[in-house]
Amino acid sequence: MWQLLQFPLCPFSRKVRLLMGEKGIAYSLVRENPWEYRDEFLHMNPAARTPVLVDSARNLTLSDSVAITEFIEETSDTAPMISGSATYRAEIRRLVAWFDQQFYGDVTAPLLHERMKKRLVHRQPPDSSVLREAMRLANGHLDYIDYLIDHRSWMAGSTMSMADLAAAAQLSVADYLGGIDWSGHEQTKAWYSMFKSRPSFRPLLSERMEAITPPSYYEQVDF
Amino acid sequence: MWQLLQFPLCPFSRKVRLLMGEKGIAYSLVRENPWEYRDEFLHMNPAARTPVLVDSARNLTLSDSVAITEFIEETSDTAPMISGSATYRAEIRRLVAWFDQQFYGDVTAPLLHERMKKRLVHRQPPDSSVLREAMRLANGHLDYIDYLIDHRSWMAGSTMSMADLAAAAQLSVADYLGGIDWSGHEQTKAWYSMFKSRPSFRPLLSERMEAITPPSYYEQVDF
Ligand SMILES: N[C@@H](CCC(=O)N[C@@H](CS)C(=O)NCC(=O)O)C(=O)O
Ligand SMILES: N[C@@H](CCC(=O)N[C@@H](CS)C(=O)NCC(=O)O)C(=O)O
Repeated sequence: MWQLLQFPLCPFSRKVRLLMGEKGIAYSLVRENPWEYRDEFLHMNPAARTPVLVDSARNLTLSDSVAITEFIEETSDTAPMISGSATYRAEIRRLVAWFDQQFYGDVTAPLLHERMKKRLVHRQPPDSSVLREAMRLANGHLDYIDYLIDHRSWMAGSTMSMADLAAAAQLSVADYLGGIDWSGHEQTKAWYSMFKSRPSFRPLLSERMEAITPPSYYEQVDF
Repeated sequence: MWQLLQFPLCPFSRKVRLLMGEKGIAYSLVRENPWEYRDEFLHMNPAARTPVLVDSARNLTLSDSVAITEFIEETSDTAPMISGSATYRAEIRRLVAWFDQQFYGDVTAPLLHERMKKRLVHRQPPDSSVLREAMRLANGHLDYIDYLIDHRSWMAGSTMSMADLAAAAQLSVADYLGGIDWSGHEQTKAWYSMFKSRPSFRPLLSERMEAITPPSYYEQVDF
């Protein structure tokens, strides 16, 4: 069986878990704090990042969430998440990259650094100006997501895809860390509320990272 | 015909150009400085990043280099660069992500910022401590590339793949900006020397970015 090395607030691991959940692929979780640079972990992934997906029976060790999700997509035939025409697949992958890099870089990464790493690793208080800037950028990015949802049923078009999973992964971590002000973003809110009730997402929403409490509405479908 | 919006030192555009060159797909270049946030460009790619690949006759606008290269790979049948078993494809994509993110973030991006953007946009001198740190990290990353080349014919295994194109794209920009000390990296140097003579790479190596001169050995196959 697959083992996924991750920690509860890693958005890239969440993206992989949502995909495996949608496809009904079984896996167990192994807790890994990449910032501890465990020798055995570095050996599995020299980039020292989560997620890493392992199947020791088959001697497989996969890393990088895009490489992992493309692998799962290529080797499973249920619930395709990168499908349709080549143009549609390009739009799905463009949005995955936008969430994985732009949204993560501007919003999720600074929130994780200030609210999680500083607390657990550096034992420092968060820098409120960095948090304010991340929330300001989140607001602009939510405007763009509102615009997408206004024109399409799902993030990339008429079907649910990897773009929705990438979006839910980043948004849920940012929301856990109190970085999202949902007011004025009715379209994204409606999409997220619907996504929250998916069986693939419920187990993720009920998990907690030690010492860090999410807002009271974090897990609620109506918020 | 395809039009590629880019500037000469954008490594992600170089990766796309190498792929199109290997496959013999024709395109013309359109100069774009993403940091000028041209309205029409933002409209094409809200992430405001190069490369963007356009075919106006077919009303296609693609952005993000991974989405673009997967699209080209899916729609062409010459010179496959993401091929082989699912496991091999995962290894190719892992290394592409490593070059696009780790090598770029640690080495190419700070070099571009200090040596290109500060000169052309901010009219400031480069910060030598940032340059030193980028070169230190480059050295460590070259050790890892040496290790890969020691164990394999090409970056990802027995065939040339997207991983080699991603590597050449990042290394060539870092080398242009004087960020690579090749001494002690014989394996990577031999691989790069061989790669430099490929017809897909020659036109890139002969291009220049205004006001920035590469080291004298930059274009030479023997260096
Ligand atoms: N491109 C990678 C990015 C993974 C990544 O950045 N993971 C973060 C955790 S969310 C990490 O491990 N960072 C290193 C650290 O925190 O020390 C992927 O998509 O898997
Ligand atoms: N994930 C994107 C990254 C592209 C990227 O970061 N491009 C740089 C130029 S090399 C850019 O446009 N940066 C914005 C700027 O310089 O203002 C891709 O692979 O295409």
